Amino acid sequence: MQTLNVDLGTRSYPIFIGSGLLGRPELVQPYAPGKQVMIVSNETVAPLYLERATQAFAGKECRHVILPDGEKYKTLDTLNLIFDALLTHNFSRNCTLVALGGGVVGDITGYAAASYQRGVAFIQIPTTLLSQVDSSVGGKTGVNHALGKNMIGAFHQPTCVIADTGSLNTLDDRQLRAGVAEVIKYGLISDPEFFAWLEQHLDEVLARDPAALAYAIARSCQDKADVVGADEREGGLRAILNLGHTFGHAIETATHYETWLHGEAVATGMLMAADLSQRLGWLSTDALQRAQQLIARAGLPLRPPTEMTRVQFLQLMARDKKVLDGAIRLVLLKGLGQAIVTADYAASQLQATLDAYCA
Amino acid sequence: MQTLNVDLGTRSYPIFIGSGLLGRPELVQPYAPGKQVMIVSNETVAPLYLERATQAFAGKECRHVILPDGEKYKTLDTLNLIFDALLTHNFSRNCTLVALGGGVVGDITGYAAASYQRGVAFIQIPTTLLSQVDSSVGGKTGVNHALGKNMIGAFHQPTCVIADTGSLNTLDDRQLRAGVAEVIKYGLISDPEFFAWLEQHLDEVLARDPAALAYAIARSCQDKADVVGADEREGGLRAILNLGHTFGHAIETATHYETWLHGEAVATGMLMAADLSQRLGWLSTDALQRAQQLIARAGLPLRPPTEMTRVQFLQLMARDKKVLDGAIRLVLLKGLGQAIVTADYAASQLQATLDAYCA
Repeated sequence: MQTLNVDLGTRSYPIFIGSGLLGRPELVQPYAPGKQVMIVSNETVAPLYLERATQAFAGKECRHVILPDGEKYKTLDTLNLIFDALLTHNFSRNCTLVALGGGVVGDITGYAAASYQRGVAFIQIPTTLLSQVDSSVGGKTGVNHALGKNMIGAFHQPTCVIADTGSLNTLDDRQLRAGVAEVIKYGLISDPEFFAWLEQHLDEVLARDPAALAYAIARSCQDKADVVGADEREGGLRAILNLGHTFGHAIETATHYETWLHGEAVATGMLMAADLSQRLGWLSTDALQRAQQLIARAGLPLRPPTEMTRVQFLQLMARDKKVLDGAIRLVLLKGLGQAIVTADYAASQLQATLDAYCA
Repeated sequence: MQTLNVDLGTRSYPIFIGSGLLGRPELVQPYAPGKQVMIVSNETVAPLYLERATQAFAGKECRHVILPDGEKYKTLDTLNLIFDALLTHNFSRNCTLVALGGGVVGDITGYAAASYQRGVAFIQIPTTLLSQVDSSVGGKTGVNHALGKNMIGAFHQPTCVIADTGSLNTLDDRQLRAGVAEVIKYGLISDPEFFAWLEQHLDEVLARDPAALAYAIARSCQDKADVVGADEREGGLRAILNLGHTFGHAIETATHYETWLHGEAVATGMLMAADLSQRLGWLSTDALQRAQQLIARAGLPLRPPTEMTRVQFLQLMARDKKVLDGAIRLVLLKGLGQAIVTADYAASQLQATLDAYCA
């Protein structure tokens, strides 16, 4: 087992990474204050892991609520199902919520914990690669609105993150590849050495080699913890973690969160951001090609849905949370491993990228 | 104009109290970062004050959303109307929300501000006595759930509070009296001198004498600011502000937020808390009678709805946010002006109080 630390003063917490961590009471119980625990999972994950997760809270009043599976259910209505369960069982302000599942379960459970009685404790037990390397760390929680992704939420840090790499064995290939998109992201934004490692070891990661997976997860979490520790509430730097997300959220919103996985949309979005960076003269053609090749090798989509137009992209991107006084700020690359957040690009160059990617 | 300060470090903010403050741009604009302002009001208040409030934000993109009026609309569904408006107009993370109305508008707008894009600025412009003396100060925001009041929310401080005493001229008598309940509360929990002042000057307050009203509002806000400054997130002391609220929330929930005003339920709840305090030997019979007489003179209800039973009270009180490991903690009085939070009372004494107040 590896232990990393997210350094946030009084809100610091550990990330435990290893195989078989799911059912270990001595690992998790110190991070669950109070006597009441509500495990939130979904209909896909619960049959696989709910029983073991419940064992970890032996001795407490441990209940659960099972949500429908999928990004399209990351809504205020689904959030209310968690509040229903908490209130039906008279859960008090010193209870603990546990998110057992992927990014959607983690985001919605974290927001429920931020909001229930104005804030209770929660533990992240991410069961997908994407949630283990990205969404479970850093305290961003929330739900989607029909008019934009992650528009409603809170910063609320977990008390610990338990990344059981054993749970990835039941993940289907498409979900694994979607997680690899966020792994590649860390190489692109801040860690060129990791990017080079991925070029060497991507096939092992995709083949679920335990050592390669554990390394990729720990390195990704460390990269993310470093950024979050420096800028918890996204005053500036933290926004680089959104490489590809402004384009990607537009794709997810346009397709109603139904057909594209988040990681897939981010992969295509990263390619579009890299393309724009290259047009601006910031990223070399060679670096652009390396990014394209790695994402292609991961089996991720290289173009947005054919029905999306340039105008639609611009409309949806105008609702991004990074928009400042009307300007669409984007995460772009000044080189491999060197992301910046900027609105300092010519509109014509963004249009050229959109034209190149829209049929 | 009087200016008080709520002292919360980097989250400190001023409370401006006076007549005619509503439409003064130079007063309010320093507290509205960004170019976009969304005024949230309700169908009762908007016809009276929306135009003047809008004038205060001249030069900005100022839009509004009008909610239905009433505690029963303090729900996630109504909250979503605010998000709809913000996203429809592409409001960015550096926008400002303005709550123009009573406690319901303030609570729901504050929670929208806490949650929109994970947190934006907001200004409180309370237009009822109750919201001017209580709910607009201190950063408690939220909505109700069918199973309990204020169960979903956040701590989110405003950038300033503008209490225009002129707006009380349009308040109906019943609403004014409901606000007086919270004014009396400050006397009971921490300010015996103010309680004695109210015994002398209640008739002037009820007759809306401007000087008496301004004094009562400023003294109430100062009392509240002192408590909130010492315990922003209700680790302990702050809970005394909930005198009468555990009983009162049970009444509001039982009557579906339709027939009792919040201040009315709090008034009856304070009487029940005082009754229990007297049974425990903590409050003298004389002090109990003084509390009863003042609340009666204010024209507030002295008993819960006749259909409520002891069992129903206990069930609803078990969902209170102050419940800790199954014990119902109550705010009780060790004397006039001396509130404590405690679960250290005999269940039989609570039952005696409930029996005395339930038909």
